[in-house]
Amino acid sequence: MNTEFIYELSEKADSILQGNGNLSDLSALSMELKAALKPYNSGCIAIAQLNQIVGDIEYNAKKIMKYISFAENLGLEMIIFPELSLMGYPIGNTVERHPFLADENKKWLEEIAKFTKTITALVGFVECKNGEFYNSLAILTNGKVLNTIRKSDSAIYSVNEAKYNILLSENITDLDSLSFDKSQVIVQLSNSMSRNGSENKKHRALSSFAKKHNTPIIYVNQVGAVDNCSFDGGSRVYNSYGTLLARAKFFEEQFLIVNPFNNIGKIYSSPVLPEKENNETFSLDYEYDLERTYQTICQGIRDYFGKNGIKRACLGLSGGLDSTVCAVLLVDVLGKENVFGISMPSKITSKESKSDAEQLASNLGIGFAEVSIKDMVDTNTKVFDNLFPEVETYWNCRYKKSYTQDNIQARTRAMYLWGVSNEFESCIPIATSDKSEAYMGYATINGDMSGGFAPIADVTKTKLFALARWLNNNRKEKNVIPESIILKRPGAELAIDEKTGKPLKAEDALMPYEFLDEVIWRIENKHESYNDMINSEFLYEREHSVSKEQKTQWLDKFFRRMSFALYKGSIMPPSVIVDTQSINKYEYYQPITSSHINYNGTQKSVIREKLEKMILR
Amino acid sequence: MNTEFIYELSEKADSILQGNGNLSDLSALSMELKAALKPYNSGCIAIAQLNQIVGDIEYNAKKIMKYISFAENLGLEMIIFPELSLMGYPIGNTVERHPFLADENKKWLEEIAKFTKTITALVGFVECKNGEFYNSLAILTNGKVLNTIRKSDSAIYSVNEAKYNILLSENITDLDSLSFDKSQVIVQLSNSMSRNGSENKKHRALSSFAKKHNTPIIYVNQVGAVDNCSFDGGSRVYNSYGTLLARAKFFEEQFLIVNPFNNIGKIYSSPVLPEKENNETFSLDYEYDLERTYQTICQGIRDYFGKNGIKRACLGLSGGLDSTVCAVLLVDVLGKENVFGISMPSKITSKESKSDAEQLASNLGIGFAEVSIKDMVDTNTKVFDNLFPEVETYWNCRYKKSYTQDNIQARTRAMYLWGVSNEFESCIPIATSDKSEAYMGYATINGDMSGGFAPIADVTKTKLFALARWLNNNRKEKNVIPESIILKRPGAELAIDEKTGKPLKAEDALMPYEFLDEVIWRIENKHESYNDMINSEFLYEREHSVSKEQKTQWLDKFFRRMSFALYKGSIMPPSVIVDTQSINKYEYYQPITSSHINYNGTQKSVIREKLEKMILR
Repeated sequence: MNTEFIYELSEKADSILQGNGNLSDLSALSMELKAALKPYNSGCIAIAQLNQIVGDIEYNAKKIMKYISFAENLGLEMIIFPELSLMGYPIGNTVERHPFLADENKKWLEEIAKFTKTITALVGFVECKNGEFYNSLAILTNGKVLNTIRKSDSAIYSVNEAKYNILLSENITDLDSLSFDKSQVIVQLSNSMSRNGSENKKHRALSSFAKKHNTPIIYVNQVGAVDNCSFDGGSRVYNSYGTLLARAKFFEEQFLIVNPFNNIGKIYSSPVLPEKENNETFSLDYEYDLERTYQTICQGIRDYFGKNGIKRACLGLSGGLDSTVCAVLLVDVLGKENVFGISMPSKITSKESKSDAEQLASNLGIGFAEVSIKDMVDTNTKVFDNLFPEVETYWNCRYKKSYTQDNIQARTRAMYLWGVSNEFESCIPIATSDKSEAYMGYATINGDMSGGFAPIADVTKTKLFALARWLNNNRKEKNVIPESIILKRPGAELAIDEKTGKPLKAEDALMPYEFLDEVIWRIENKHESYNDMINSEFLYEREHSVSKEQKTQWLDKFFRRMSFALYKGSIMPPSVIVDTQSINKYEYYQPITSSHINYNGTQKSVIREKLEKMILR
Repeated sequence: MNTEFIYELSEKADSILQGNGNLSDLSALSMELKAALKPYNSGCIAIAQLNQIVGDIEYNAKKIMKYISFAENLGLEMIIFPELSLMGYPIGNTVERHPFLADENKKWLEEIAKFTKTITALVGFVECKNGEFYNSLAILTNGKVLNTIRKSDSAIYSVNEAKYNILLSENITDLDSLSFDKSQVIVQLSNSMSRNGSENKKHRALSSFAKKHNTPIIYVNQVGAVDNCSFDGGSRVYNSYGTLLARAKFFEEQFLIVNPFNNIGKIYSSPVLPEKENNETFSLDYEYDLERTYQTICQGIRDYFGKNGIKRACLGLSGGLDSTVCAVLLVDVLGKENVFGISMPSKITSKESKSDAEQLASNLGIGFAEVSIKDMVDTNTKVFDNLFPEVETYWNCRYKKSYTQDNIQARTRAMYLWGVSNEFESCIPIATSDKSEAYMGYATINGDMSGGFAPIADVTKTKLFALARWLNNNRKEKNVIPESIILKRPGAELAIDEKTGKPLKAEDALMPYEFLDEVIWRIENKHESYNDMINSEFLYEREHSVSKEQKTQWLDKFFRRMSFALYKGSIMPPSVIVDTQSINKYEYYQPITSSHINYNGTQKSVIREKLEKMILR
């Protein structure tokens, strides 16, 4: 079958539909494509893997209309849009506060329906019935809304004479008890975020279901990002043997023609290397997941900026790993002309840090300035030298050793960045914190934690090292990140280590990152407890000699710091969720007021003793 | 019946149980109380309205044990604890990340059970079954866990030979189809937050249900606050005629003995004036709700500080309403010795503001210092005078008029407060933003928006004025708030109004607060749209002449600003939810990336035209 020609034509058409090229060429292309499809026409359908804008009903509706119209011209049987494609997803509980939005999307839906002819279009929208709101799907055909299906029903609905079974439920295994036949296709609509491990899981679940039930499956996903959520696309079709027949691109809009009955499809490449994925033990081999990580974050930045009318980013360049990786990612999304890096040295900042920051900016070709924070720190210190004794006369509880001086530096830097953001159009400052730091609360409130967006807040430090190397090898311009930045041990350069007389290194203040990142991994992936971790061997322990005492001390520090980091997590700017699990406040909610949790647990005999003392005689 | 004596004794005992007085007196008291209860003993039960600590299983378990033991000594039939009282509520999805916590609470539960004899104790805990977690209730008696009930089942369970029907479901109307008789009691466990209007709603629902089904109802609620949630207690009993028989205190722990079969109970007073409650139209008469508002916020502060080991608060005193009300509330909870106010004038700050701030601090007797922000602002301005031209050579998009200078002031003030917090033990800075400002994004990031806790973030400005007057009249020390603070028109004093040459007033930058607060009220309570509001009369319009053009302009500004305030809302510190609805990020979630929502809506004919243009020919 000459299906290559079909995809060549449809890619051209898709590109025009997406606004590149000349719309007047579309009519000829459309006729050519229709002719090419003729032999397989019965059962040919289109997946419209779109990137919609939450709440922008007009924008979404117009795009849906355009794609329906194109598919109709091709004579396709059906066109399927992602879940909630008319309202955009996720909309949160916005419609409960502003129910007129549901009326609006219904008005647009009904008008779209009027323009449908022989094609069946599946369009997701917010349905309102008796004051309740539903994630629903409308079946549009023949000039009207034929029917609507609610996701909450999690049932299966048949359309086009039972040829298509529509499933809105998240979980395909809900259908395990039903039976299907080859001439029926299951259509699953889902909004699936790009997560570490999700691609393989999805593939296994869909493929084995198709095989087991001897029925083809069409899975439709959206692309694009909304705040913390970055959706990965990769809509796909499996035939009744469970073989992958077609898969759309990841992180890109696509109009993909498939015919599950005639085995017509094309498999676009995946950013994940599936055979390398391993969820069973912690490993520093992140290679398999770096392209996906990169693309997920880039899409996150692109859509947060693009959909919110932000064009420019400024960030502090410390010469450290975090700000470096952020700068590269920003350049790749926004273009070097829209990124401004500021080196803000203090007296603690090393010469190397300054020159590394400058070198990076020069390699990337971004705007760059060096501004000392000395005068601000001095002025602030002078103010505090007067203020603190006044407070001390009232409160006799001044710390012997405080973080005040460290924080003055971090906060001054944030003030500079927010100043630039206030003074220049459509510009936000970037929070460069990483995931390891987020767990440890190792960032300054109103300092490096602060910003309009936090690109790498869900990437651990050890993975960031791997990502930095990957960026040096895989971008068009090789080795933009100076080797010295990748080789140096991370440190905030806010304080001097009393032992060495040099700037304090993060690992000396916390614990080795390899160990720290494994603790995070074990909590998120294995839900292990303190005692589970005490009793099992860490990767770090295989390569280094770690005393039981040392391990206990690190774990105690981890859980203590994690408890106190919850507040900081609650005021983190929006970031991109990338990892299998995250501590993003919208996904993981633990009350700040839970600092009394005893992560070590208590033995039964001790419990009994403690309770016995409470018995009143 | 001499029930007064029963309550006198049980109040004394309760006070000792709560740690006041001598534990050795308890035994005698217990015997006296047991004797007093003798005539009504069959059917006497205790409601233990506790304030537990989320995740502090040991603390919670010991308290539960103590109360069970006391109730057992009294010969009571049953003791009822609030929902999830062993784990604490709300725990979020903490147990999914740390499942060992569920094992822990089960261990403690089983040990508690072993100490029960003839009494039946209803204890809420987190149940784990096949990897799923449930909000469950355990029935403990005779040395063991007799049974567990899951909230998600939302069914009804009978204990003690069908005398008690236990309902865990939120919604009592779920039971409307069932039938009961007078000899059966419905026990409803619920965690209900203190909200404007909730008390009357609760009363009506429970009372009419009891009457309709001719069955007594026991409703058990917790007290105490967790992060944003402040639970109000007021546990209660209705007899089978729907008459309120007993009601525990609000916002206080209580051990309350009731006998729904013998009409034994006591009604403690409510902080709400029910007959004044009116949800139908917007009104500036907040009087009915001020004591509840005050107590809700005080409990919110008390528990956020107390449960997290925070003792002290520092805040900026601007001489304005927001910081003033915050200061009074903090003094009432923490004591004046734990509150430090700092006046941080700039060149824009008026003499009156400075003297008002000082007067307030002196009236309250809190710590006070005045620190100019001039040097910091000057230093920062100098830095920006050098930095911005450098950025401008790269980015030719500098604003003609910016908020940079305004924000430097607000951020410097926050730096001072965070500095004090870093330098002194157990001290956090207070974010003094109010609800009207939160909707308008009228606060500076890393400035006045920033802090460890935001006491009044769910109180609108017009309500704050009423609260200020109420505080002046209802606290032991009258009129601590200088009249001049209540009388002045609010303004941030960050910029000069070009028209008047005086500091810009908030209402001139935004719109009249009376109008603004009604817009908020209509959205939250009536879910009205832009067009609904255009087409109806505001309270403000009855008293002032407002042109259609002016009203349109205010509403446009409201919706535009609200869209851009979503980001600020996402990084707000924890606050206390008090109002009927809030924009707290944990309760109301609208993606930041929804700035394209068209709040005005589109007419059908326009929709049709717009869609028609998308049809491909």
